[in-house]
Amino acid sequence: MSRLLESYAAGSWYSAPDEGRALLDASTGEEVARISSTGLDLAAMVDHARGVGGPAVRALTFHQRAGLLKSLAKHLGSDKDELYALSARTGATLRDSQVDIDGGIGTVFSYASKGARELPNDTIVLDGGTEQLGKTGVFLGQHLYTSRPGVAVQINAFNFPVWGMLEKLAPAFLAGLPTIVKPASDGAYLTEAVVRRIIDSGILPEGSLQLLCGSPEGLLDQLGAQDSVAFTGSAATGATLRQHPSVLHGGVQLGIEADSLNCSILGPDVATDDPEFDLFVKGVVAEMTVKAGQKCTAIRRAIVPSGIADAVVEAISARLATITVGNPTAEGVRMGALASLGQRDEVRKAVQALRGSAEIVFGDPDAVDVVGGDASTGAFISPILLRARAGATEPHDVEAFGPVSTVLTYDSLDEAIALAAKGQGSLAGSLVTHDPEVARTVTIGLAPWHGRILVLDRDDAPESTGHGSPLPVLVHGGPGRAGGGEELGGIRGVLHHMQRSAIQASPDMLTAITGRWTKGSAQLVDDVHPFRKSLAELTIGDTIRSASRTITLDDIGHFAEFTGDTFYAHTDPEAAAANPLFGGIVAHGYLVVSIAAGLFVEPNPGPVLANFGVDDLRFLTPVKAGDTIDVTLTVKQISPRNSADYGEVRWDAVVTNAEGQPVATYDVLTLVAKTLAS
Amino acid sequence: MSRLLESYAAGSWYSAPDEGRALLDASTGEEVARISSTGLDLAAMVDHARGVGGPAVRALTFHQRAGLLKSLAKHLGSDKDELYALSARTGATLRDSQVDIDGGIGTVFSYASKGARELPNDTIVLDGGTEQLGKTGVFLGQHLYTSRPGVAVQINAFNFPVWGMLEKLAPAFLAGLPTIVKPASDGAYLTEAVVRRIIDSGILPEGSLQLLCGSPEGLLDQLGAQDSVAFTGSAATGATLRQHPSVLHGGVQLGIEADSLNCSILGPDVATDDPEFDLFVKGVVAEMTVKAGQKCTAIRRAIVPSGIADAVVEAISARLATITVGNPTAEGVRMGALASLGQRDEVRKAVQALRGSAEIVFGDPDAVDVVGGDASTGAFISPILLRARAGATEPHDVEAFGPVSTVLTYDSLDEAIALAAKGQGSLAGSLVTHDPEVARTVTIGLAPWHGRILVLDRDDAPESTGHGSPLPVLVHGGPGRAGGGEELGGIRGVLHHMQRSAIQASPDMLTAITGRWTKGSAQLVDDVHPFRKSLAELTIGDTIRSASRTITLDDIGHFAEFTGDTFYAHTDPEAAAANPLFGGIVAHGYLVVSIAAGLFVEPNPGPVLANFGVDDLRFLTPVKAGDTIDVTLTVKQISPRNSADYGEVRWDAVVTNAEGQPVATYDVLTLVAKTLAS
Repeated sequence: MSRLLESYAAGSWYSAPDEGRALLDASTGEEVARISSTGLDLAAMVDHARGVGGPAVRALTFHQRAGLLKSLAKHLGSDKDELYALSARTGATLRDSQVDIDGGIGTVFSYASKGARELPNDTIVLDGGTEQLGKTGVFLGQHLYTSRPGVAVQINAFNFPVWGMLEKLAPAFLAGLPTIVKPASDGAYLTEAVVRRIIDSGILPEGSLQLLCGSPEGLLDQLGAQDSVAFTGSAATGATLRQHPSVLHGGVQLGIEADSLNCSILGPDVATDDPEFDLFVKGVVAEMTVKAGQKCTAIRRAIVPSGIADAVVEAISARLATITVGNPTAEGVRMGALASLGQRDEVRKAVQALRGSAEIVFGDPDAVDVVGGDASTGAFISPILLRARAGATEPHDVEAFGPVSTVLTYDSLDEAIALAAKGQGSLAGSLVTHDPEVARTVTIGLAPWHGRILVLDRDDAPESTGHGSPLPVLVHGGPGRAGGGEELGGIRGVLHHMQRSAIQASPDMLTAITGRWTKGSAQLVDDVHPFRKSLAELTIGDTIRSASRTITLDDIGHFAEFTGDTFYAHTDPEAAAANPLFGGIVAHGYLVVSIAAGLFVEPNPGPVLANFGVDDLRFLTPVKAGDTIDVTLTVKQISPRNSADYGEVRWDAVVTNAEGQPVATYDVLTLVAKTLAS
Repeated sequence: MSRLLESYAAGSWYSAPDEGRALLDASTGEEVARISSTGLDLAAMVDHARGVGGPAVRALTFHQRAGLLKSLAKHLGSDKDELYALSARTGATLRDSQVDIDGGIGTVFSYASKGARELPNDTIVLDGGTEQLGKTGVFLGQHLYTSRPGVAVQINAFNFPVWGMLEKLAPAFLAGLPTIVKPASDGAYLTEAVVRRIIDSGILPEGSLQLLCGSPEGLLDQLGAQDSVAFTGSAATGATLRQHPSVLHGGVQLGIEADSLNCSILGPDVATDDPEFDLFVKGVVAEMTVKAGQKCTAIRRAIVPSGIADAVVEAISARLATITVGNPTAEGVRMGALASLGQRDEVRKAVQALRGSAEIVFGDPDAVDVVGGDASTGAFISPILLRARAGATEPHDVEAFGPVSTVLTYDSLDEAIALAAKGQGSLAGSLVTHDPEVARTVTIGLAPWHGRILVLDRDDAPESTGHGSPLPVLVHGGPGRAGGGEELGGIRGVLHHMQRSAIQASPDMLTAITGRWTKGSAQLVDDVHPFRKSLAELTIGDTIRSASRTITLDDIGHFAEFTGDTFYAHTDPEAAAANPLFGGIVAHGYLVVSIAAGLFVEPNPGPVLANFGVDDLRFLTPVKAGDTIDVTLTVKQISPRNSADYGEVRWDAVVTNAEGQPVATYDVLTLVAKTLAS
């Protein structure tokens, strides 16, 4: 008997007392492992996540969490041979395994990088600017995101045992949430192997990752308003989850990615000898055959202009004829087996349904040449291309979750868009065109129905990752039939796991709550110029109130001559007088901020290393010759870098004229040493 | 018999053929109107919205839609007496009516203003920056929001017949969606009156607003993946909606705001003679009595330190004793009736349940002194304050949707936060404290459970809008029991109605699709300096490639002296050499951008009126003496203003050194005349 998979629950590995269910090699039918969750204490797992894992993750800042993800990705990236070998038993070719394993690790790397670059070195995230809620500015609003004290449960599909787990784990972990992974049974041995590596590494805090191998029966009953379930799988199972009492009444947040009837559209501008024609054909064939078409994002509908349909069918068929099907460990195999014999039955049933309004033009669902295997014990199937009859409905409704696609035709862009919409919401669509007008019309038409749209042409093809590949930096999900969920998308995928709240408070209270200086709150002026303070010594609210300087006509004329910026508003009194906004000579905006820097700077060597940028500079009141200006600079945000001996300080800058009017407002960005040089 | 309310459906007013159901004056029990939707063609309404209203709204830009909202708000704001009179019949005092009617109109104004200021003068919204998806930059990603070709259905609660409609209508309209309003029957006569004013005004395009008076039975059956339902009401009805087949299987997007067990916490720092003590007491009393406590956001749980609880109860009771209950049209009435006798029964039942773990310390659910009315025909009830016993559970579970609140006590901040969380998710929480540490700890602890949190103290009290008031610029909604929905929040509320999609394309295609210049796409250089082109003549991608200039040590020294910015890295060779980032004298960043402006400027009077700002300025490579720089300026975005004869042009600026390295990148913002001066 094969090994029984274990669950990692509440701090230790759990082995069920029964024999469990056998998981078979997709190509050979041999037993790979057994699976059972009998006796597993699901309530204890949820408690452990909430009580141990969550607090441990939330004790870290986003940058610290990102650092752990980076270590984790590096660790998983070394020595993947064992994982590839296990992956092959799911029917995956080496290329398929790379999509799953390396794609998953790449996603963790991406989140490590985004987390360090785009999130603050803090535990909350501000959302948008401060809203002044009253006339005088004593009552303000600020949106922010906080971590939920709950658990993120993921219920994954069988097709990506590694990527499916890691693409959900990374954003949840960054968001401060512990995760419970429940893989599909098929391929769970691969997920278990990866989780074991993660646990053995000790990189993630205990409790932040648990594994449930086997039935999750009863798990949702344990969940409440701060918990979430991310489900990837069929629309039918998704609907069942939507009706669970914890979702209906308990406030559990449910995100669903369901397989969808994704389309690829060939633009009307493309002729058979254009590079885009080949790109389209290659795209369809790749989506049919990678993972044997078992991808939620695969192209199920190829929508092409009527006039070119014959050529498209011919070209796709010719290419499909070169695909060798068989055991992925055998030489020359380009497409492996489906996940199980049961899945093959499902695909055959779906093809039969599609034949209600389409003809098979390539392949036979019941016959396939197999290399290194046997279609009686392995879940092999031929790629199958169908061509829809006019008015066909099944291709928009029936999903064959295998190497199956249907060609449909259109006569106008509106018809192409309408056909795409008949899928009732998709994860991914693509458009192959080299015409910018076609690209704009079709993309905007398709967008409300799609989570992601690839516009492919000769220009982006060299780097394109293809129709079917979700990327960590782009949202993955889609409306309607695709489940209505959204994952990934860089930091968007992190914020989905957090709660957005609007905070109303006085400026001082808002500063205290957010850790970021808020306009109107206390400004601290003391004897030490803040440029002489290290990161450790600086305090939010530390302020420089500068001396003032009168800007003369000579200053303006000289600056114009020196910089070459002789714009008439600075140099020609008559023309400047006619300018509707100025009505006379004004100082250059750049002159104003340059002089402001001269007013606030502390010139001697000290902890301030550099001014690396300026944000949101707005010139609010023209400065005329004779106007006197001063500047107030206040520490707004202090962001130590984990990997350097300095950090970033964001200063609020306000340049004011003698009447007290703001002349210019901006943020000054500096690098400041963490401690004073000894 | 009173008048039968009409529905506005598919372009005309519809009157049902039957007598319908009587709607009674909350205070007198007299019949105000009758309501019925018998025979109403709901499918035709949905078709009309999708086929007529939606396309008409989406033909407008965001700024045009915002302009119509502004006109609408002005129109509704004139002559509100008829509306106040109808509102009084719902049991509302004048103050209550102002919250509903003026609050609703204010929300429309707010969206008009936000739409014009914060959305582009376009029909799509870009989300975040461009993501480079490959090494060379030919394959990019960009998220954007598009309008859904569907309908926004709102199913409203009885408590705010005007605000409830307008706060949902304004963001949906801005998002390009037609709306079907289904008011609660109680008070529907007021909603009908407002819709009639809107339709009669002709301000909104036909089909963008329809009204369904009466039962919506069968309406959801008509909806699909591009449609949304925004429901405000009880958690129980919300759960029923969640189980509708159109939601479970049809992809209808359902947003729920359910009444919740909101709390207000009195900080441990507050003594009875602090101003915060009075603010807390006044806040609780206001939330109990405004709209007779019939607000989803009202304070149901007053959580106070044990030691001060007696004083709190005494002070709230004393204040409640001054509240005169009665017919809102009678002199001196401070609190009106509940919406109906049925509602009063519900409140009495809930109070009875609360008494399972709390004592009534003020008021009697079965007895109240009534001015200008009669408790046998009008839905009057006394304000009721309860005090919970230790370990009470009902106050966290049972909502009495009336003038009812319960005092609970805590002994530590952790306990206060834990008590708040027992509500399982709320729309609004508040904290009354003058201690910044308390504010930070409690606010961050409460945030995952709340959509909005008010931190009230002596500083913001003068402008505070109170615990219970949703504001258009802040999100309204909450997790868990509060429904998990989110509305309002300024533009956030608009984007909720739109679909976010990730677009993958080449730079040129992305420019074509978004209408905004994308780095890497074509730059158009011709004989005419772009500063000589009016808004009408400028094209996305128009580019200036400047001459170059060598920056000398004299330039740097002179600039330092002239501006006063004598920072050592610009002036002291030895000290600069020791700087870890520069290793020698560098030019000021402000000098670089000033000289860049001199290189790209066209000095003569022309359509460019002013440079009003700079965004995202980053200094990437130090410029040293002897370095030669040039600048490339490209038209990135053109935004005509609807209300001025000029618009905004955003230019992409890249300063490069002789090695081709980017020295500085930023966006330059200019105002440009729409046409050339004649």
